[in-house]
Order: sequence, then C-alpha cells, then structure tokens
Amino acid sequence: MDALKKPNGANSSPLTPLGFIERAAIVYADSPSIIYNELTYTWADTFRRCLKLASSISLLSIKKSDVVSVLAPNIPATYELHFAITMTGAVINTINTRLDARTISVILKHNESKLVFVDHQLTHLIQEALSLLPDLCSHPHLVLIEDNGPASGSVSKLVKFINTYEAMVEAGDPGFKWVRPESDWDPMTLNYTSGTTSAPKGVVHSHRGTFMVAVDSLLEWGVPKQPVCLWTLPMFHANGWSYVWGMAAVGATNICLRKFDAAIIYSAIRTHHVTHMCGAPVVLNMLSNGEVLSHPVHIMTAGAPPPPAVLSRTESLGFDVTHGYGLTETGGLVVACSWKKEWNRLPVTERARLKARQGVRTIGMTAVDIVDPESGVSVTRDGLTQGEIVLRGACLMLGYLKDPESTAKCVKNGWFYTGDVGVMHADGYLEIKDRSKDVIISGGENLSSVEVESVLYLHPAVNEAAVVGRPDEFWGETPCAFVSLKEDWGKPAPTAEEIMLFCKGKLPGYMVPKTVVFMEDLPKTSTGKIQKFALREYTKKMGFAIKSRI
Amino acid sequence: MDALKKPNGANSSPLTPLGFIERAAIVYADSPSIIYNELTYTWADTFRRCLKLASSISLLSIKKSDVVSVLAPNIPATYELHFAITMTGAVINTINTRLDARTISVILKHNESKLVFVDHQLTHLIQEALSLLPDLCSHPHLVLIEDNGPASGSVSKLVKFINTYEAMVEAGDPGFKWVRPESDWDPMTLNYTSGTTSAPKGVVHSHRGTFMVAVDSLLEWGVPKQPVCLWTLPMFHANGWSYVWGMAAVGATNICLRKFDAAIIYSAIRTHHVTHMCGAPVVLNMLSNGEVLSHPVHIMTAGAPPPPAVLSRTESLGFDVTHGYGLTETGGLVVACSWKKEWNRLPVTERARLKARQGVRTIGMTAVDIVDPESGVSVTRDGLTQGEIVLRGACLMLGYLKDPESTAKCVKNGWFYTGDVGVMHADGYLEIKDRSKDVIISGGENLSSVEVESVLYLHPAVNEAAVVGRPDEFWGETPCAFVSLKEDWGKPAPTAEEIMLFCKGKLPGYMVPKTVVFMEDLPKTSTGKIQKFALREYTKKMGFAIKSRI
Repeated sequence: MDALKKPNGANSSPLTPLGFIERAAIVYADSPSIIYNELTYTWADTFRRCLKLASSISLLSIKKSDVVSVLAPNIPATYELHFAITMTGAVINTINTRLDARTISVILKHNESKLVFVDHQLTHLIQEALSLLPDLCSHPHLVLIEDNGPASGSVSKLVKFINTYEAMVEAGDPGFKWVRPESDWDPMTLNYTSGTTSAPKGVVHSHRGTFMVAVDSLLEWGVPKQPVCLWTLPMFHANGWSYVWGMAAVGATNICLRKFDAAIIYSAIRTHHVTHMCGAPVVLNMLSNGEVLSHPVHIMTAGAPPPPAVLSRTESLGFDVTHGYGLTETGGLVVACSWKKEWNRLPVTERARLKARQGVRTIGMTAVDIVDPESGVSVTRDGLTQGEIVLRGACLMLGYLKDPESTAKCVKNGWFYTGDVGVMHADGYLEIKDRSKDVIISGGENLSSVEVESVLYLHPAVNEAAVVGRPDEFWGETPCAFVSLKEDWGKPAPTAEEIMLFCKGKLPGYMVPKTVVFMEDLPKTSTGKIQKFALREYTKKMGFAIKSRI
Repeated sequence: MDALKKPNGANSSPLTPLGFIERAAIVYADSPSIIYNELTYTWADTFRRCLKLASSISLLSIKKSDVVSVLAPNIPATYELHFAITMTGAVINTINTRLDARTISVILKHNESKLVFVDHQLTHLIQEALSLLPDLCSHPHLVLIEDNGPASGSVSKLVKFINTYEAMVEAGDPGFKWVRPESDWDPMTLNYTSGTTSAPKGVVHSHRGTFMVAVDSLLEWGVPKQPVCLWTLPMFHANGWSYVWGMAAVGATNICLRKFDAAIIYSAIRTHHVTHMCGAPVVLNMLSNGEVLSHPVHIMTAGAPPPPAVLSRTESLGFDVTHGYGLTETGGLVVACSWKKEWNRLPVTERARLKARQGVRTIGMTAVDIVDPESGVSVTRDGLTQGEIVLRGACLMLGYLKDPESTAKCVKNGWFYTGDVGVMHADGYLEIKDRSKDVIISGGENLSSVEVESVLYLHPAVNEAAVVGRPDEFWGETPCAFVSLKEDWGKPAPTAEEIMLFCKGKLPGYMVPKTVVFMEDLPKTSTGKIQKFALREYTKKMGFAIKSRI
C-alpha cells in the first residue's frame, strides 16, 4: 500500500482555475460571458480574446512570475486580464482604483510591475504615480484601455502608452498555448491589503489556492450553472472574492459596471434578470431603501459584520442574503453563515441576528478556531469569551511579497492568525466582535465597536454608523459614535443626546457612546469599509473628553 | 516572488473528505442524515456514531494503511463505515456483495484485510470465501452487522464474529480524535474493478483524490444543499461514484435501501420526496415504464452508454437525467454531458442523441482527450475518427494495489489510458463507441457494438439488448445481438428476422446483426453492466456462423 503513497503522472497536474475558461469555451460556447452597456461577448469570444491577449503579452518579454498590474474598474478588460495575464505564467496585480497616487507608486515599486494596463479615465492617476517613483526605479510599460462604454475624462498626454488594449487583442494569436503552472504552488495573484491598516502588504496566492477558493466559494454559495452575476463588488478586491474565476467555471453571464448606485443596480437587476451579486454591507445599505424585487436575487456580503437591521431590511425586499467572511489572505470567503432550514421559522429580528454571525468554515477549508492569541488554546464555546480567529486550509495565501517577517508573524503553529477578534457560539458558529485593533478598551473592559454599531443601526434615522475609542483620561478610552443620517428621514434630525438615550436601554452603560458625531458621509476605503483609523485620528484631534463617570 | 513558491503551515494541510462529516455535524446537526425503514439519524448522530465506531476499530490494533473490508448492501452501516474506517487511518474496501465466494477470497488474500464487517445476510458467503483462503493466509477478524431493518436469512454458525456492529458503536468513545492524513497522497479507499474484465484489480485512491472527485461531482451535478438522495447505486461501486462523501458535504438525507425494484423506487420517491439518485442505464430502463412524477427527480447515470430510446422514455416521466462517465480508476464521474440551454429547443429524439454522448471533462479535471493509442496524437474532432479516451487530473487513482505493471500500463505520458474507445465531436463533446475489447471487427471494419444496441433499443418490443462479435470464417467476426423482450409487450414476439429487418434501414449493412438470440434476462455484473464476456463465450459455443455475404 505504501508504495502507492505518492503522486503519479496522471493525477498530479497542478491545480489551476485557468482551465475553467477553456472548458467554458466548449460547454458555454454560444452563451453570454460578459455584458457591458451595448456590448455582449460569448464564452467562445472570451476564451479566444484571452488567448490572443496572452500571446501579445508574452511577446513583451514578460517572464514567468513577473508581475503585471491592472488599474481599471469592473469593465470587460479587467475580467479578461485576470485570465490573459496569468495564462502567460505572469502574476496579476489588480490595483484598487481609489488609491492615491502615492500609494500606487509604492505598490508599483514594491512589486516591480513590468507592465500596467490602465483605464482611460485613470491615466492622470498613473501619470502622477509614475512621477513619484524614484529615479533609479525602472518604469513599467503602459497599455491604454480605451474602453468601449461611454467615454469620459481625457487621456493624460504626459505618459507614453506602448499600445492600446484592443490593438493587443487584435494582433494576438488565438492558437497561443497558454502556460500551465509547473507546480501547485506557482504564484498567480498579488493583491494588496486595503486601507484599514497603514502599511499595505502584498498578498500572494498560488494557482492551487486560487483553484481551491474558487471551487469552494461556488459550493458554499450554491451557485448554479449559468447564473447572471452583477459586478457590484470590485474585481480588484481579492479578485472579486474569487468569483472572477468561479463565474467561468459555471458559465455565468458577467454584467460589468463602471460605477453604480442603487438606481443602476435595480435597473440592471430588471434588465438582465440578475441572479447573483456581491458587496460589502454598505451595498446592502444602499439597496435597503429600494424596491421589492420581482425575482429573488442572491447577494453575498462580507468585509464587515452587517448590522442586523440592514440585513432584515434587505431581505424584506426579496434579496436572499448570505453572509460570509474572508480576508485578502484567504483569497475569498472561507467562513460563511450556512443557513439552517429551521431558522426560517424564527421571527425576522432573530433571523437577522443569527445571520449577522460569520458562521462556520466552508467545505474546502480544513479548520477554523478561536483561540487565546497568547497560548493558542481554543476559547470556551459560550458566545462570550473572546479570542483571535485562526484558519487552516488550502485557500490560504503563500505569504506576503518580500516580507517574510510579516508572513511569519501571522502564519505560525500550523494556523493563519487573522487579527480578528471573535467568539464561538455553543452551536459551533463563530461571530466577529472586532478587528483586534478596533476593540475599545474602556476602564479595563474590552468593548466590541461592532456591537455598539448594531444598536445604532436600529435607530430609524441612522444611515451609517461607526464606533471607535476616544481617548479619555479616566477610562483610557470611551466609545465615540460617528453617524450619518438618512437623506429621506422626514422628521427633525435626532440630537446626540437622543442617540445616546436610544442606546441606553439596549446596551450596558460602559458601551453606550459618550460622544456622538454627525457626519454627512463616513470616510470609506475603496471596498466600502469604513476607515476607522481616520475616525480615530478625528477623535485624537477632539482631545480628551471631559472626565466622566457612569 | 519565487521565495514564496512553496507550501506553508497554514495552507498545506492534506485534503480529505473526512472533514465533511465533522462540518455536517455543526451545520446540519438536527437534520436527517440517514433514513432506513423506520430508522432516522441526524448528522449529529451520524458523526457521533462514526467517531465511536472509529475508536472501537482502532482498539483492534488496526494500523495506518491497513485494509478494512465491508461486505454489506446499502444499509446505514455501510454509509457510516466509509467514514469510521478511514477516520482511523485505515483504508476502506467495500466488496461487491454479488461476487462469488472464490472472487471474494482472492480479494481478501490480495489486500490482507485485517477486519471485515459482514451483513447478517451474507455470513454464508463470507464463510465460504474464508474456507477458500490458503491455509497459511491469516484470516481477518469478522464483525457481524445485524441490521435494524426487516431481517431475513440465517447467520452462519461456521464463522466466529469478534463482535457485533452495534456493540462496537455502543462501546466507542465519542471524544475520539480522528486520524487526519499525513499527506495528500495517503491511501484512503480500495475498490476492485468489477467483472467486465477477467482479472479484478485493486484501485487505490488517496485522500486528496477522494476529496477532489467528491467536490467536483457535487459541482458537476449542481447538487444543492440538503438534497434527498435515494441510494439506488451500490455504495460499493466506487464509493457510490464519490457521492457517499459528497452527500455529507451538502448535508443530504440519505435514503438507504437493502434492495429495490421499480415499485420500491417510486414509493420511496413519493414518501421521502427524493431529489437525487444514481444508477446504471439498467436502472433507467427499470423506471422507464413507470409513472409520471409529481416533482422532478435528478438522476445521474453512467457505467454504460444509455440508449437514446431509454433516455427519452425516462425524461418524459419527469426524471431530469444527467449522463456522466467515469471508471473505478477515476473515483467517480469525471466526464459529463454538460447540458446546454439551447438544446432544450430540439426535438426529443435529438435531445436524447446529444445526451447519450459522454460529454466534457468536469471542472475539477485537468484534461481529457481522445488519442491514437499508438502515437498518442489527438484524433480529428469529426465525430468519426476513433481513438482511446485518456484522462488527466486530480481525481485519478494512486494506482493498482501490488500491481505496478498494470499501473504503468495505463498511467503513462502524463495520462491515464482508459481502454475505452471513443470519438470527439466537433463541438468538443466526446462519445464512447465501445470498450476497446468490445469493438467488433468485421471484414476489417471497426464496428461499435453500442451503436447497434442503440438501434435495437428503438424497437418497441425490446427490453434490453447487447451486441458482441461472433466468430465468422469469412468476416473474422459478425455482429450477434442478444435481446430480451418486454414482459408487457402485448403483441406476438418479433422473430430474429424481423429484428434484423428493423435494423436494416437504420444501419450500414455490415453493422446489421447477422444473428439474433432471444434471452429472458441478459447476464449482468453486480453494477448492472451487461457481461459481454459471458455473451462472447456463448457465441463461441455457437460455433462459426454459416459463411455469409452482405
């Protein structure tokens, strides 16, 4: 028996999601792959275009494991480049389009991109980023994506493009032999962690990891064949939580969108009969004052714990919300609040409370636990004892690019340490209480900002809410709430005192915000997460609160 | 970048489907896992019972990679043993219950089983098998499965059982720490190839391969969460085409059946609201004269090319048939006739003809091709040029137990050579023409027995049909048809001449059967495949046909 305990020539070909598109070109040849404004491609088109583009990219002396970057919104080119770049053996780095030029220059210097594909609306941004690169640093070649949707903005004349995107597709060889990975562990994607931390890190995933998270995420969400996916989630956000790959596996119709608001989403749902979409809770919030749907739309949310009030409002309109959890380091969602049939019988608020929990590991993951970060021992499964969420499984990253220290800091003892603080409920479902750095420590008590926010969202006038610690001479910190109000709130705006009073009956005294700041819009990252570090800066400028006792 | 190109402690834990049941015990804790007559277990029960059983098995000094065998029909114990045995680090070998004692003794000698779990109805069979073991060969320990369904048959008094199944479950430790594989390639299952070949070979699959085929098969079939699976496919047939594992991943209700006929199946569909079932085309044939369903039932068929006439009859009753292809060596189905929406608009016979094709590789496989077996070069994609089907991907076996020569004969040049002959259609869908040994060579023409059978099935009186080559002095071989007729065929039975005449307008002359033999039942393997070798033996006894020219 033991003589067989090794790979052989037939079963050991490296796993990769790139085969999905090759297969889609057979099975879904004549079905729509991408729709963008007036444009429609089929899966046969998409495969052929990707092969041609890949052949043109490889003529630019891009070598295996070189980084090729993309700076573009959710347009067809961004979808195609996920496959075309990696089909040459190169690594794709999709850059968050909402980053400032300085951060982009730091990223390009760090990953030594050989080539950057730039959307025509972002040429000034790339020009500024390149101007910030040190003199000795070699500049990447640039390719201009002119886009075939409604154009706007002018193309910078200060940068030189070696070619346009469509010319590269046009000139390419459709018979190109795409480069298969040599091993499961060949790098495939590079994604920089976004702005809730100050120093972005370059997360590298392998072909195997990407394959696994793509397959796993399809199973977890129960995505059927040939869904219609509306791209409300930026593809540059962990490759659309891996669904960029997954949608090729199931032959989806990908509805691309340059930008969107609630009206655009509802219109797309009606026009294209959208079945699936993803987005941070901020997208749910955007939809929650909208119209009742004529057909159910499956929506996957993650990125921050969704307030129960937002969940129940969205579901009442006909959205079927799944709540998942993942990080850039997991390549997609690896924990999800797998729904139990029997929960359908519960009242709506109870359902929303259960669904706001992050849940259980997905089928493809090996293990998830919540441990004491010092000892590594599992916390009691009582829904109360807090600990750090740790993960183990095939979806996890290879590590951080050029940063073995950071990698070693979070990959240890056979686990990935997420830096997220949570509790394990008695039924085996976990719930995040906070990012460890977002925990507020008030008078020695650990206080979950997320719990306070959940209560704030229950107030009928509140549109968005975020709570951070405000320095306090006596308590160390006290909870400080930042709140935006609904535009269509007909009645007089509540005062800070009214908001605090509202919380009082619903939270222990030490958790009730001692300060309430009203803002028109809360500062957000490109992926819709509220930038708590910016709010913390704000509280520092406010100075110490007046000494207070509860 | 290259520094990262290797596994790390968090992402490299070996893949195994055993985690599915652990997760099911959380997500589907209170949902039914197994129903068998009056008995119902939940997933919490099943996980607990498997842990207890595993702890009892490991107390019997079963070591890692030892083989533990099971000789039982589709009862709850068989399902549980798939997990309990492998949770100890041992390898599970489910023995085909319809084998003769001699073959079973050959298997037990070959795999050196340390322990055999035996159904109470099969104790005489195991007793006879053990009596045939050579004197020097150590005998396995036996455990009696008394079953909790309606008992029948008497237990042999000539064999000694060390324990009963339920006593082992009862005595076990529910806190048992199940043994995780040390590597992806640790062996997990052993299945002997069934009787269409003369020498059964022991196919060994790894934990990784089993995980991959299980996940892949769920995706391919589009199995939703919490389906109701009727076990019409023997679990001893490649672990139920991997769905034994897959059903734990999705928290299915497994309806176990000791034996079945059409009436039992239709009754179970009504009682349990069955959503999914698998079976060889012989099962479809069994159902095809039945009642119209009140809800759609998804049925996966494979094991032999289903005659288009049987497909269209079954579908007209409300069965949603998926046609797949796999071998014991692939652990499940790795090619499937992925259905295209646009085909729904075609006439029923055309739909059935398309669905009778085996199709395209599944998402989890790397590649499938049809090649000239001598040169390894791909055949022309014209639907006519025959070649051997070759496969590559993570679902493939580790190899044959104690048989490196046979392994090397089929695993070569990075491919697994299936021994099946097929054609590749222009649209990229493959179709099996025959097992290579079933091809009839008549006057130098290669003749697909499957094609002739498809025509025979169109005859309204034909129940089952099989065609083999009959030795012929002039032609080498000529096609000889074996036919059973429908019991409820009201009119006079057709004569051999009428059958030949029926074929004449539909096939080229050389493919029309020159001999037609009527049988009450065609000889079949335990998995419902017609035993062509037995029919070939029959034709040899018939002697040479009278010299004939067409």
